[in-house]
Amino acid sequence: MIPRYSRPEMVSIWSPESKFRIWYEIEAHACDAMAALGVIPKENAEAVWKAKDVEFDVARIDEIEAVTKHDVIAFLTHLAEHVGSEEARFVHQGMTSSDVLDTALNVQLTRAADILIADLEGLLAALKRRAMEHKDTIRVGRSHGIHAEPTTMGLTFARFYAEMDRNLRRMRTAREEIATGAISGAVGTFANIDPRVEAHVCEKLGLIPEPISTQVIPRDRHAAFFATLGVIASSIENVAIEVRHMQRTEVLEGAEFFSLGQKGSSAMPHKKNPVLTENLTGLARLVRGMVVPAMENVALWHERDISHSSVERMIGPDATITLDFALARLTGVIDKMLIFTENMRSNMDTFPGLVMSQRVLLALTQAGVSREDAYAMVQRNALKVWEDRVDFREQLLADEAVVAALGKEGIEAQFDEAYHTKHVDTIFARVFGD
Amino acid sequence: MIPRYSRPEMVSIWSPESKFRIWYEIEAHACDAMAALGVIPKENAEAVWKAKDVEFDVARIDEIEAVTKHDVIAFLTHLAEHVGSEEARFVHQGMTSSDVLDTALNVQLTRAADILIADLEGLLAALKRRAMEHKDTIRVGRSHGIHAEPTTMGLTFARFYAEMDRNLRRMRTAREEIATGAISGAVGTFANIDPRVEAHVCEKLGLIPEPISTQVIPRDRHAAFFATLGVIASSIENVAIEVRHMQRTEVLEGAEFFSLGQKGSSAMPHKKNPVLTENLTGLARLVRGMVVPAMENVALWHERDISHSSVERMIGPDATITLDFALARLTGVIDKMLIFTENMRSNMDTFPGLVMSQRVLLALTQAGVSREDAYAMVQRNALKVWEDRVDFREQLLADEAVVAALGKEGIEAQFDEAYHTKHVDTIFARVFGD
Amino acid sequence: MIPRYSRPEMVSIWSPESKFRIWYEIEAHACDAMAALGVIPKENAEAVWKAKDVEFDVARIDEIEAVTKHDVIAFLTHLAEHVGSEEARFVHQGMTSSDVLDTALNVQLTRAADILIADLEGLLAALKRRAMEHKDTIRVGRSHGIHAEPTTMGLTFARFYAEMDRNLRRMRTAREEIATGAISGAVGTFANIDPRVEAHVCEKLGLIPEPISTQVIPRDRHAAFFATLGVIASSIENVAIEVRHMQRTEVLEGAEFFSLGQKGSSAMPHKKNPVLTENLTGLARLVRGMVVPAMENVALWHERDISHSSVERMIGPDATITLDFALARLTGVIDKMLIFTENMRSNMDTFPGLVMSQRVLLALTQAGVSREDAYAMVQRNALKVWEDRVDFREQLLADEAVVAALGKEGIEAQFDEAYHTKHVDTIFARVFGD
Amino acid sequence: MIPRYSRPEMVSIWSPESKFRIWYEIEAHACDAMAALGVIPKENAEAVWKAKDVEFDVARIDEIEAVTKHDVIAFLTHLAEHVGSEEARFVHQGMTSSDVLDTALNVQLTRAADILIADLEGLLAALKRRAMEHKDTIRVGRSHGIHAEPTTMGLTFARFYAEMDRNLRRMRTAREEIATGAISGAVGTFANIDPRVEAHVCEKLGLIPEPISTQVIPRDRHAAFFATLGVIASSIENVAIEVRHMQRTEVLEGAEFFSLGQKGSSAMPHKKNPVLTENLTGLARLVRGMVVPAMENVALWHERDISHSSVERMIGPDATITLDFALARLTGVIDKMLIFTENMRSNMDTFPGLVMSQRVLLALTQAGVSREDAYAMVQRNALKVWEDRVDFREQLLADEAVVAALGKEGIEAQFDEAYHTKHVDTIFARVFGD
Repeated sequence: MIPRYSRPEMVSIWSPESKFRIWYEIEAHACDAMAALGVIPKENAEAVWKAKDVEFDVARIDEIEAVTKHDVIAFLTHLAEHVGSEEARFVHQGMTSSDVLDTALNVQLTRAADILIADLEGLLAALKRRAMEHKDTIRVGRSHGIHAEPTTMGLTFARFYAEMDRNLRRMRTAREEIATGAISGAVGTFANIDPRVEAHVCEKLGLIPEPISTQVIPRDRHAAFFATLGVIASSIENVAIEVRHMQRTEVLEGAEFFSLGQKGSSAMPHKKNPVLTENLTGLARLVRGMVVPAMENVALWHERDISHSSVERMIGPDATITLDFALARLTGVIDKMLIFTENMRSNMDTFPGLVMSQRVLLALTQAGVSREDAYAMVQRNALKVWEDRVDFREQLLADEAVVAALGKEGIEAQFDEAYHTKHVDTIFARVFGD
Repeated sequence: MIPRYSRPEMVSIWSPESKFRIWYEIEAHACDAMAALGVIPKENAEAVWKAKDVEFDVARIDEIEAVTKHDVIAFLTHLAEHVGSEEARFVHQGMTSSDVLDTALNVQLTRAADILIADLEGLLAALKRRAMEHKDTIRVGRSHGIHAEPTTMGLTFARFYAEMDRNLRRMRTAREEIATGAISGAVGTFANIDPRVEAHVCEKLGLIPEPISTQVIPRDRHAAFFATLGVIASSIENVAIEVRHMQRTEVLEGAEFFSLGQKGSSAMPHKKNPVLTENLTGLARLVRGMVVPAMENVALWHERDISHSSVERMIGPDATITLDFALARLTGVIDKMLIFTENMRSNMDTFPGLVMSQRVLLALTQAGVSREDAYAMVQRNALKVWEDRVDFREQLLADEAVVAALGKEGIEAQFDEAYHTKHVDTIFARVFGD
Repeated sequence: MIPRYSRPEMVSIWSPESKFRIWYEIEAHACDAMAALGVIPKENAEAVWKAKDVEFDVARIDEIEAVTKHDVIAFLTHLAEHVGSEEARFVHQGMTSSDVLDTALNVQLTRAADILIADLEGLLAALKRRAMEHKDTIRVGRSHGIHAEPTTMGLTFARFYAEMDRNLRRMRTAREEIATGAISGAVGTFANIDPRVEAHVCEKLGLIPEPISTQVIPRDRHAAFFATLGVIASSIENVAIEVRHMQRTEVLEGAEFFSLGQKGSSAMPHKKNPVLTENLTGLARLVRGMVVPAMENVALWHERDISHSSVERMIGPDATITLDFALARLTGVIDKMLIFTENMRSNMDTFPGLVMSQRVLLALTQAGVSREDAYAMVQRNALKVWEDRVDFREQLLADEAVVAALGKEGIEAQFDEAYHTKHVDTIFARVFGD
Repeated sequence: MIPRYSRPEMVSIWSPESKFRIWYEIEAHACDAMAALGVIPKENAEAVWKAKDVEFDVARIDEIEAVTKHDVIAFLTHLAEHVGSEEARFVHQGMTSSDVLDTALNVQLTRAADILIADLEGLLAALKRRAMEHKDTIRVGRSHGIHAEPTTMGLTFARFYAEMDRNLRRMRTAREEIATGAISGAVGTFANIDPRVEAHVCEKLGLIPEPISTQVIPRDRHAAFFATLGVIASSIENVAIEVRHMQRTEVLEGAEFFSLGQKGSSAMPHKKNPVLTENLTGLARLVRGMVVPAMENVALWHERDISHSSVERMIGPDATITLDFALARLTGVIDKMLIFTENMRSNMDTFPGLVMSQRVLLALTQAGVSREDAYAMVQRNALKVWEDRVDFREQLLADEAVVAALGKEGIEAQFDEAYHTKHVDTIFARVFGD
């Protein structure tokens, strides 16, 4: 976890305080359930709630763990210091450490998912607003970095919206998948604990009981969760790369907002660098790098080995904190992004008129010219534009074969931009609904 | 694609013949739609169907591509050789190569998904059958590779069933996500083609029109698809590792079926090696290795660059063919797997009675012994079993403090195995339904 | 292996014919050594060489393997068909399959390394030639995609040269690391075979005996090998990205060579797309994706498990074939790349004079202006150039404070380009030697 | 960075204090060099050393960065607070932020490499000691988890030694590769700074000047560095997996040292779990997951983009800290590991005598039996041992065909263990030298 790439709300989910709080709730609710089943005395269950408002002392727990070398036992020992060791003696009865650890981890991941879902919703709102704003802002579409045909800036925002909307659905699925708990004992047989304890604890924590667990909750759930984060991070990179391209000196169709106090470079004061989106590109690499380790965690030995734990101690916080930060940063970038519509227009004329070549090609074929001949006609004129930056329309008007096929008016008609934007409303309706 | 790790049905999806067949259908259906809209003459659309039963000549298309260096143009040229170049002149009109390539790729991925779904269903059937068969077959559950408490072999199969059932759901989601097509032109604006052409083609091919495409279908869909394959591969490894552990000489609780003609090793004829599941472990690594490249494909430049293409030419076939093979191989392993119930029983007695120690611990606390004292009582007797392989029950019966706390009958009661299996039915109901 | 991304020489290393040829040589040389040690009769060793010029029948070996399910036994059976089963009966004596398989794999990887080394040498030659050619070709250097200060195209080629030269050294190290063989028996103890057999076979095949092997050669060697390929692939991407940027419409400082028959796009005939370097970008992702599976292969169980095998059957050929193809393709791109020096010059004037701002800043500080003031002076003039594309030099000449600090001549002096290229010779000497 | 998986010395390399200290030294040495060249006044260079013993105030620098949004400027501003802003005004002259940042990063990585090299040396010492100690400790070698032939525990330690020794060499190469610095200005042309400044600073910091840099040091160096860490991590996993297998209940040939205060599990007090090596398995996944992000960092745009920075801020510390911790932990495990020689012996007799079957096979062929017949003879007897756990030797002695071929004494001779260990000295000499 890198402080500069972190936001407090997500960080707090992963604090020791939060973790111990969740552990406490699991144990306390489990005691309630056991008391209701008559397995432990009601007063002992009630006694546990004495610690309800306690902020657990992380340093003290660490101190105990240094001796016991076992985190859950250290916590339980500390809990007994608050509740009284006599009263606390039924706490955790019939449970195994992983019942607490795994259920708590999934509570944390579920809460993290809630923040990420809210992040995505915020990003979607920003993307939608900018899409509407620039629905009709003409710019050139590019394939291979090369000018192709006109499109609009609104369509660019709209496709990022659609992509992030898919990510929102994926994130919701991932949240649903990870929202399970297990209180099933040492090998998952409920030998020493009634399944109704699990049901009660899960219900209180907003989880579904894991249908079948071993000592642990199966890690394919976590793998799917982190894989989803990896996909979302890759989409963030997708948007970031677009912004970085737009901001490069020769293109300059857009730019990250540049606050006045900010210095772009110690040496070149005029430089407005797309540092936020470059940063997002790097953050995407980080989150992606956590996907395979999460997948390697799936194949645990028999009813569990603990190899997954160190991986999750790192990627649990790191992936969610980094992605939360990245989504928030991207939302800010989109929200305040500068759009240079004049440059969009002048860029389209880098090779004047050439972006209309496909349309001319089509018009020629439709006018009865063979595909090969039409291709040749367009190509010979296009190459002149390419080499001498002359105007494509004028070249065509001076090309007898083209004029013979299309007529002068027919040629002129191919350069009407509205032709390219006529379906923008249709596409927006498909993306945003009517 | 490695022939020895391939099955013909999946391989055939990725053959050039299949690809050209799909291309053909896209073009032909697009002509129909354009004819219906009055954009091209009906007879030209009809003419295209003359090639309906043609097997396209891959070598001839390759030959043309060697000149044009463009695969779709090569195909269209060859198609014109069948349909007649005059009749074929409206084919592909207003479309861009990616309209064909991307829609075709998604048809292939969708068909691959259908096979993988069927594979998973087959695997689930095998797992369910074996789970039912061994529902009550007692074996020791292990955490950290160390004996913990009794469980049953049926529970092992049942948890793999539950995991693969989640994978089936993930695969269905992935199929749904990838089943889109796009016929939207050079930058996705439908400038030269009516959106109704896309709608018609997609409907005929069983796809949903991509709500907003550029020149290409957005690659987050493909990233999510391959990530799902990576999760499934990791689950395959999970099952494979269990089998490998069961088969190791000292454990020998199960084994891959061993056909008579098979030689285990050129040097050690008696060896029955778990080579199939070791192979599956390796195949899982391969499929996982394709996830990050698929994610790196998401951030294409502007309306597209073609960097994704080489990645997909390799991982499209390789990931689906490998996973199909792996699922089929695993199904065979599960189906015919040998289960050595006697060894399960003798393994449980490696340290006689020690697997009951947690239960004894619990009984002691319930009898009013403090957690720390109970722990100590169990530990001192357990260590003797550990060191001298004496019987745990007998140790306890000879330990005055334990007898004082539980009574002799109370001690005996802790060694009843039924205690550990009493919730197996409950768990089975949760996994398989009632 | 994708035929279109493959070259025959590298492909042939991985053919079954090549593999069986290497197996044959291992067995035959091993027989010689055993005969020399008096372990087997000399005539039997000599008899094996009867098959010296045989092209082994792959189909026949596959047929035998279908029965025996063991590839080495299948090969030995077939070999006996050539040599005579009586004469062949000492072949492979005391050896284990992996002695053959692993030694053969390393022969293949060593040969693949030789090709890759030659590829890198070819690429270095092309880079050096282009570097010399464009040593003094001025273009703007960019950080963050934003104009920074002048540099030369020769420096760009030179840094790719230096990077690829490091890769050459890495590749040589990787080759050295992988050039080991092992003939050490079932668990590496030489129980049934004299270490001198290993020494003889390795010497004949150009390998070093693995100092300590188990049944297999340790896989950290292979992991380091494939990791090296991943680094090289990433460097290829680095060069490819530069070319792609240079070719984008607004930049157009360079382009992949465009042959006349080639069609850039079915729809936009004028488009000269950087498809080769986009392809290289994708190929880099593929090779990188094979690094982690190779690393996961390191941790085999005890003296070996066979999980590495399926991984290597795929990535052995795929990584080397793909990288060989990519290096050759990149060499072609560099060799024939078009450089548009005029566009380099006009791009530098996108914001006239602004690339000199750092130098002006420095001149101001050196003239006694405080860092903060100098920054402010440069910034206010730079922003005007940024906004109105006016000439930076003229702005400065009209700024009284700047004139007061530097004098008019002092300002003019900052716009001398030679200032930026004065150390190019020094750098070239560091890269290419004197 | 996870505190529980960190060691202070490595952590301190990555502290802000260390970083600012290195930045300071770079700037101060650069001033010296510039003064020596007459570029800045000597007294200003000397003045910078006034801060020689200052502990920079991280909080204050962060405060300034919050305004300037630029870390190097913030540092320089703070430095001026110590040195005096008049005196400090030539600090950083002609340099660009990356000159400082990149050179400092490589200083950190070089120092981290030194620790890792020392770690590996410590691990090698432990492995060597245990190898010598157990040179002749017989245990069964296993392939596929199945008993193969006898080997010794010393050979196991020796092969880990050889593997880690290769890793030591790789780490030294990686250190050498990363030990470069660059003070070459905004685009690497030395326009505003003399190359002799770079030479001086590098010499003082123990670095080699980067032959050709842009704004940054090329990232293929870092990719190779982190790839090396990934290989080492995979070797750690290799050793860890061996220990985990040895410790599993049914095998129990070794165990991690178990301190008395440690509680193995909250529920099963007798359990001695291999938690350290399971932990190492997870840590290996983490380090491996950082390799591909480091490789993705290679392809920066033009003379640099800053996408690499966030990646390195995380993986720089995380990979080195994690690997340092893992190496130290593994050294402790090896150093104190319990070896259960009696269990090694009893495990070898799981299927009495069967581990000698390859040798019998060989003896039969050498006695003139055809390969196929010998195979059949061994197989039929081996299967009985497999099924009924009878003694292999006795089976053979009762098999007329075998007795006919080998004689009774000949059969007995095959069961001499010394046969398998006769080359241990040879192998040790190859690994450890004479």
